[in-house]
Amino acid sequence: MQRIFEIDPWHLISHQLDDKTKLLQESLTSIGNGYMGMRGMFAEDYSGTTHAGIYIGGVWFPDRTVVGWWKNGYPEYFGKVINAVNFAQVNFWLNGEKVDLAQDQISDFTLDLDMQRGQLTRQFTVTKGEAQVQVSVTRFVSIAQKELFVLRYEFRNLGTTKVDLQIDSAINGDVYNQDANYHEQFWQVKMRQQTETTGLLVAKTKPNPFATPRYTTAMQMMNQTHLTAQSATAAAKQVVNRFSGELATGASTDFEKRVIVTTSRDYPDQAAVVTAAQQLSRKVAQYSYAELAAAQQQAWATRWQQADVKISGDPAAQQGIRFNLFQLFSTYYGEDKRLNIGPKGFTGEKYGGATYWDTEAFALPLYLAITPPQVSTHLLEYRYDQLPGAVHNAQAQGLKGALYPMVTFNGIESHNEWEITFEEIHRNGTIAYAIYNYTRYTGDDTYLREKGIDVLVGIARFWADRVHFSQRQQQYMIHGVTGPNEYENNVNNNWYTNLLARWTLQYTLASLSKISSAKNTTLKITTAEKTHWQDIIDRMYLPEDKKLGIFVQQDTFLDKDVQPVTAIPAAQRPINQHWSWDKILRSPYIKQADVLQGIWYFIDDFSPAVKKRNFDFYEPLTVHESSLSPSVHAILAADLHYEAKAVEMYARTARLDLDNYNNDTADGLHITSMTGSWLAIVQGFAGMRVRNGQLHFAPFVPQQWQGYEFQINFRGRLLHIEVTKAGTTITLQTGAPLTIDLAGQQLKLE
Amino acid sequence: MQRIFEIDPWHLISHQLDDKTKLLQESLTSIGNGYMGMRGMFAEDYSGTTHAGIYIGGVWFPDRTVVGWWKNGYPEYFGKVINAVNFAQVNFWLNGEKVDLAQDQISDFTLDLDMQRGQLTRQFTVTKGEAQVQVSVTRFVSIAQKELFVLRYEFRNLGTTKVDLQIDSAINGDVYNQDANYHEQFWQVKMRQQTETTGLLVAKTKPNPFATPRYTTAMQMMNQTHLTAQSATAAAKQVVNRFSGELATGASTDFEKRVIVTTSRDYPDQAAVVTAAQQLSRKVAQYSYAELAAAQQQAWATRWQQADVKISGDPAAQQGIRFNLFQLFSTYYGEDKRLNIGPKGFTGEKYGGATYWDTEAFALPLYLAITPPQVSTHLLEYRYDQLPGAVHNAQAQGLKGALYPMVTFNGIESHNEWEITFEEIHRNGTIAYAIYNYTRYTGDDTYLREKGIDVLVGIARFWADRVHFSQRQQQYMIHGVTGPNEYENNVNNNWYTNLLARWTLQYTLASLSKISSAKNTTLKITTAEKTHWQDIIDRMYLPEDKKLGIFVQQDTFLDKDVQPVTAIPAAQRPINQHWSWDKILRSPYIKQADVLQGIWYFIDDFSPAVKKRNFDFYEPLTVHESSLSPSVHAILAADLHYEAKAVEMYARTARLDLDNYNNDTADGLHITSMTGSWLAIVQGFAGMRVRNGQLHFAPFVPQQWQGYEFQINFRGRLLHIEVTKAGTTITLQTGAPLTIDLAGQQLKLE
Repeated sequence: MQRIFEIDPWHLISHQLDDKTKLLQESLTSIGNGYMGMRGMFAEDYSGTTHAGIYIGGVWFPDRTVVGWWKNGYPEYFGKVINAVNFAQVNFWLNGEKVDLAQDQISDFTLDLDMQRGQLTRQFTVTKGEAQVQVSVTRFVSIAQKELFVLRYEFRNLGTTKVDLQIDSAINGDVYNQDANYHEQFWQVKMRQQTETTGLLVAKTKPNPFATPRYTTAMQMMNQTHLTAQSATAAAKQVVNRFSGELATGASTDFEKRVIVTTSRDYPDQAAVVTAAQQLSRKVAQYSYAELAAAQQQAWATRWQQADVKISGDPAAQQGIRFNLFQLFSTYYGEDKRLNIGPKGFTGEKYGGATYWDTEAFALPLYLAITPPQVSTHLLEYRYDQLPGAVHNAQAQGLKGALYPMVTFNGIESHNEWEITFEEIHRNGTIAYAIYNYTRYTGDDTYLREKGIDVLVGIARFWADRVHFSQRQQQYMIHGVTGPNEYENNVNNNWYTNLLARWTLQYTLASLSKISSAKNTTLKITTAEKTHWQDIIDRMYLPEDKKLGIFVQQDTFLDKDVQPVTAIPAAQRPINQHWSWDKILRSPYIKQADVLQGIWYFIDDFSPAVKKRNFDFYEPLTVHESSLSPSVHAILAADLHYEAKAVEMYARTARLDLDNYNNDTADGLHITSMTGSWLAIVQGFAGMRVRNGQLHFAPFVPQQWQGYEFQINFRGRLLHIEVTKAGTTITLQTGAPLTIDLAGQQLKLE
Repeated sequence: MQRIFEIDPWHLISHQLDDKTKLLQESLTSIGNGYMGMRGMFAEDYSGTTHAGIYIGGVWFPDRTVVGWWKNGYPEYFGKVINAVNFAQVNFWLNGEKVDLAQDQISDFTLDLDMQRGQLTRQFTVTKGEAQVQVSVTRFVSIAQKELFVLRYEFRNLGTTKVDLQIDSAINGDVYNQDANYHEQFWQVKMRQQTETTGLLVAKTKPNPFATPRYTTAMQMMNQTHLTAQSATAAAKQVVNRFSGELATGASTDFEKRVIVTTSRDYPDQAAVVTAAQQLSRKVAQYSYAELAAAQQQAWATRWQQADVKISGDPAAQQGIRFNLFQLFSTYYGEDKRLNIGPKGFTGEKYGGATYWDTEAFALPLYLAITPPQVSTHLLEYRYDQLPGAVHNAQAQGLKGALYPMVTFNGIESHNEWEITFEEIHRNGTIAYAIYNYTRYTGDDTYLREKGIDVLVGIARFWADRVHFSQRQQQYMIHGVTGPNEYENNVNNNWYTNLLARWTLQYTLASLSKISSAKNTTLKITTAEKTHWQDIIDRMYLPEDKKLGIFVQQDTFLDKDVQPVTAIPAAQRPINQHWSWDKILRSPYIKQADVLQGIWYFIDDFSPAVKKRNFDFYEPLTVHESSLSPSVHAILAADLHYEAKAVEMYARTARLDLDNYNNDTADGLHITSMTGSWLAIVQGFAGMRVRNGQLHFAPFVPQQWQGYEFQINFRGRLLHIEVTKAGTTITLQTGAPLTIDLAGQQLKLE
């Protein structure tokens, strides 16, 4: 655990400038607007430890798969998140000497991520020879105009002599990925133009041998200042505008940089990409800095009005959940349905790919409840639009139907470790489950009937082909899978996977009765096919241990040396940093909820006794080394009235990155698991469920807290829920009257 | 199947010059002398399809492991076989035009690998404008002087006008690996010197961040010809000697190139490597070409005298086994105990590494019987010398004792796919088994007592730590392994692995009673440790199916959809080229002997009924897509008197490369599986066994053959065995009298 920012309800504030925690600081001060985003690196060149990462949603590179022993069916490439051309770069000189915060004498340093307003500010005083200058910097990526990045400096001469100030504002195409092999560069600079105060740089991703697009990006910068423009010669792959002037004692001046970023994702060719950048530049030129900043603040205010969660009595928890919501919304707010929620968002390069099953499993429930309805619809349509890719993936494995990818940008699998790609097929079940979850929450089956059914049938056909019938056991089985617990690989009959496969077939069969006859015709489902699905449903093997009264994670799990996590010496935790991979695989230790993930999905289908026995058996074996694990446990613990355990699990998810719990936040934030704290509060502490179309709550307040408040959308209403130790108050903010169930009592809201 | 060379008892002869089969031709005409070797590429630049591969034993590069998701314990690098500086290069010009066999008009082409004499010859006539010249080329790598390569040309003017002939003889350091990523080069040229007729090039492998040596190589070439030396300017990274002259109609001239190759494997620094190359050059300069060629022929004759196998009535089989023995001996003949038998020898780059368990499992029995005794001793000492590396490997996995690597150059694991490196631990059992096999065959327990026991104890300690005790089953188990059948991964309780683990503990315990008390003290084995080993032996779980009466390959094998290989459509064979990897893993199909490998190792420990039931169950499930599979099946089939099956399996191993059975010989030869044909004849058809120190034979002659003859060393004797349909004649060629068992009859040889 490592906490580098002060506790504050709406801010991340630090006065430390420490090279040892610089990467962590950069990750935590990332900003984004769904379209693009960046880490909190300084705009100035920094000779210490830094990772200047800027990312544009949906812009990636297919990196050829290299393995020692090629096997049939391997994805051809790994989908790499690539570091964009650096459009944020600004350097300045005092009396001719370049400022470098890693080397210079810096005082009064403050870094402040303002989550309420969506901007990052920085203030510091640099003393260099006789010069002493206070610098204030603000940056934001605009929600109101997604292509716009704004960076504003204010310089104040605190010294006793005048200071010569020079500023270089640049767009720099000479960038590398932090994780690139062999120092390759992914961008080729295609065009550079500059005037005294503006610069344009156009770059294109390098060629690749695969049938994936190359991307062109145009970046148009405009600089405004009272300093005097100078002619500047840019290095190769850069454009630079230079400004200089004299700053008298006590005087101040400002400098503002705006950049418009357009890409070939939105425009058909290079000319159009450039034209769009120029047109948008002219458009934003009509507004003052104050107007742009106000628009940004207003946009965030609108989001918070609907989504904010207030916690009384625990400022750290309060900061945690707001940070989580801020970073989630910075990554995805549904404007562009071709995008999704990458595990690192715009905060790092690790893992690659933009889309994991995390979206459907962990993010959808949150977006359903606290964002406008089309955000969730877009998440579902994303998968519908990528159905051809899923069919391709199944065919690549020699199977029928559709297999949604483990990792992708475009529907085609772009991860390339076989034990993940080929074996973690449980993901396919969650894609189906999301359709059910959406329909259950919204009460609207339009998506299910018109698009979702195509997805369901594709997935059902995959499962029906992927199972095999064991003559010996006279049951259907699924061999060779990896469950959500990635600390086992290539196991047989993972209970969770088998459960989801059976459920998908059941739900798809049931849904077929709701669709139009035209749709039915298109899908070409025969009676024989339906009979076969029913046979699989009837004879699917789901491993259970009658003696222990539990579901068994996989066929041979109970042959392991089953010891609780408490048997692991503390110095060997986390085990993934201390144990060899094979030892982890053989161990009984569980990375994240697996059987319990299935129980969470269908929480009302299991008796309290069954839930309790399974929780009591599996939770003590779980190391929670996936950031996705604690929230599920928090919800189930709350369901079982294990309140202390629920609170413990909440703590592990809410401040995972803020407290650098897994010692890996320097690489970037754990975006998709940031839903965990919200799920733990709403589904856990407040016990929210939807049963037969009715909302249920069964709230409690953690002992350490005084209370909490949140709001949710539900079928056209906005509800405000306030839970205190005195009781629960549920208010209908907008929408038609509604009857809900509060702790077993029917409650009519008007 | 693709046969491009004529059937001949001692030669591989072809008159075809066909770009489509050029790579295959090159692989099959590879030559080597244990120290170095090369593919059969032409010495001249060839603009068609070619792979100019030259390899020096023990010279390699550690290529950094790159994976998407790094796991603890992964080997840091992949050990890459690197293509050496090209010292064979010669180009020639007729009337100023460079000859290119891919483009020019070529007639009367003959390629001839002479396996009896150990040389490769090539003859062809090139017609280029008015010039018509017959070219004869011979090359060999010398057994008599391991550092020596000899290449000799003869040019004869067949045309009607004089021809201007120019020859460039070069050493070319501008080489790439065929499998290199990102076009990297592994050699840096450090020094170049040339006179009119000689050239020296010194190169060093590029730096790497690991604790592995860099290699320096010096290559000294000497050219001899009646043509006139010319000054020539070499391109960067090359040295070139140029010669030219006029060839009158009907006249001929010759050109000879000798190269001495020395490396820092044998000399301490660059200066010493260079001095040695120069000294050896002067030494070989004392001999004529005829003398060098005669020495080569004599050395091969000595090898053949001991090792040759004669087959009557089947010329293709005859050619097959000689080709196998020729290529095995070209790869390894035990001169340097730091080297081993790479799976591709000096014929390609695939797989990487120099040493696999193939050596102990498949090669040792052959080398024991048909090469001088120290060859086998060196194979065993290789592992003893690498015991520290094996201890390192075990520690990297968090385990005690010694884990011999799956692939290595120096004892440290240098493969990096986890399902191979971490899981195929059965290899460790074969390293132990080889000590038993050697001791049983030679009757000499010196190695066992002095060195082998250290290896055995290391391996026994590994097994004792690697098993776990299942409380539920009250038995010791081994989870998370891959057996010899690589078409299953990460399985539990692979019968073969568990058997070898238990046997190692038994054999080690038994061997401890034979060692000196000094040795016992060094090994520090406590009574508690021995008691624990005995407990594991007593309670080791070995999966069996009582109903079927078979050993079960792994815990859940019988839950599969068990269908014979005949159920696979022919168009889907081989399955590794048609099925996705996950489908293969889930299938019941077996790549190579697994349970049957264990039965082969301990063939006298199982009743005929048990052997039969297991063979009858597993053989029909085996696709033999490993080149190591058919020989084991041939031996067991012969043991069970399934003579037709034994002969079928022999055919699959004997001409695997000559008939390009698996359609991958273009990449290089399957060196280690070349022992298969010899094993099938000697242990299979002739039924050779060693039981209680006595040799046994139980021969039969395949129906299509008239008979076969072979010789073996056995405890100081040389025996000649001739098997015909009329009967078997066993002759003691040298050595003391010996009583053997021939088909159940005691037979005294004098």
